[in-house]
Amino acid sequence: MKVEIISTVAELTEVVRGLKKSGRTIGVVPTMGALHEGHLSLARASREDNDDTIATIFLNPAQFSPQEDLSRYPRTLEKDIERLADEGVGYVFAPSNEEVYPNDFTTSVTPPAVARRLEGEFRPAHFGGVVTVVLKLLNMTCADVAYFGQKDYQQGTVIRQMVRDLNVPTEVRVCPIIRDQDGLALSSRNVFLSTEQRAVALSLNKTLLHVEAQIKAGQRDGFEVVTEMRQMLIDSGVERIDYAMIANPDSLEMADPIVLPAVALIAAYVGETRLLDNRVFTEG
Amino acid sequence: MKVEIISTVAELTEVVRGLKKSGRTIGVVPTMGALHEGHLSLARASREDNDDTIATIFLNPAQFSPQEDLSRYPRTLEKDIERLADEGVGYVFAPSNEEVYPNDFTTSVTPPAVARRLEGEFRPAHFGGVVTVVLKLLNMTCADVAYFGQKDYQQGTVIRQMVRDLNVPTEVRVCPIIRDQDGLALSSRNVFLSTEQRAVALSLNKTLLHVEAQIKAGQRDGFEVVTEMRQMLIDSGVERIDYAMIANPDSLEMADPIVLPAVALIAAYVGETRLLDNRVFTEG
Repeated sequence: MKVEIISTVAELTEVVRGLKKSGRTIGVVPTMGALHEGHLSLARASREDNDDTIATIFLNPAQFSPQEDLSRYPRTLEKDIERLADEGVGYVFAPSNEEVYPNDFTTSVTPPAVARRLEGEFRPAHFGGVVTVVLKLLNMTCADVAYFGQKDYQQGTVIRQMVRDLNVPTEVRVCPIIRDQDGLALSSRNVFLSTEQRAVALSLNKTLLHVEAQIKAGQRDGFEVVTEMRQMLIDSGVERIDYAMIANPDSLEMADPIVLPAVALIAAYVGETRLLDNRVFTEG
Repeated sequence: MKVEIISTVAELTEVVRGLKKSGRTIGVVPTMGALHEGHLSLARASREDNDDTIATIFLNPAQFSPQEDLSRYPRTLEKDIERLADEGVGYVFAPSNEEVYPNDFTTSVTPPAVARRLEGEFRPAHFGGVVTVVLKLLNMTCADVAYFGQKDYQQGTVIRQMVRDLNVPTEVRVCPIIRDQDGLALSSRNVFLSTEQRAVALSLNKTLLHVEAQIKAGQRDGFEVVTEMRQMLIDSGVERIDYAMIANPDSLEMADPIVLPAVALIAAYVGETRLLDNRVFTEG
């Protein structure tokens, strides 16, 4: 498989201009590298929907706070490129920090209100960093469609609203969570889990499946559901819960009583590793 | 002349998609209406450079503070459209506030650092409103080139930096100030000036011409130049000076000593009317 590796914005602009001139549609798959099957499923979706696919690999410092795990975040660039090439991705954009944030860079995007909830309470600067870099990447790639994973549920919601608010001419598609056979949602951070921790981590998915069963059985008391979620996680050995919530899928306001569609979301620590998972419940 | 009037974002998106599909280049001329020869010169520049031109007419409330003159800002929509049609502009986008800022709109752009100087000191929220609406308009129109007047010098600098920082695939062109025969820089707000006030208003241009003569004669003391500028304006009857400055043309930091190129900028009130003017000085 032939893949073109692009490392500067100038090269990327050149490539994109060429593709656009020939009327080709472009899909972009923004990633921070350390790719797993979840990312590759986005690449496949993009390949299916568009003439060309650009995967971006950029570990965006602006979305990590100084206390967070930027420095230990897994980096597997060679392998990432190989896997994208195997998927038939034509272009990989892997810029340096300086390419994305030149010295005199000072503009930023203030994310929509929905960014203040959940992740926003625990990582207040996170979504500012996300929407700014995503807007830059959408602009650089002139993408017709951009692909994100549902594992970062709120991220999808925030980006979709940002794109709508700023009239960005890119369609945002959120693709289903990919799970390991044991049910653990794929994440680049899963490599940090010991065997014991991995067993604990499974409680996120199990808790969400329990919520699903409850809702199917007619449970509509959001407060009760959330209380049970927390208890299940703690009983399973989860060390710290940032949030365990059932919410409206667009506004992410707590759903109490539960009205469908709704989404249950969890952010919790297993050891030092912060994990996310979620599940959407629709009617019928 | 045939001009298509567009009032919704959906219609505009449709039109733009059609133009882009046929590979046509698009120039955009963003205005707040109350058009004068300055705006029309931008329309002409765009017509010359691009296959199609979209002029936008939107009196953006987000760039006015509650104390400012939004409610009395001149509105001449019918006449504006006529004049744009006479210039051969193909498309006029004149949306309502609700089209630009739907109820659930909450994202915004924080302008680059250069927005904090000069205008930013006197109109702190102004450039936030400007860059957010300009980014939206550039995205809506998928413009290849966007045209702005040099009369709003700092605006051009701020927008150029925003476009660069966010990698917006639009080129920003700033066109020369158009002046009346007496030298007054054209502005939609000039209609507010009485005959007496207009005579006072001429002191802005006269002051800038004086600075030019001084610099040509070898004056390089920025502090002296600025002191003289203020004195000239006050002596001419200007009631209030927001700023009178000689600065680096990119950073807008005060130039003292004066190094060329430099720009002299004035914002001052004549009666209730706030006027802007500036002049760029290059070597030789």
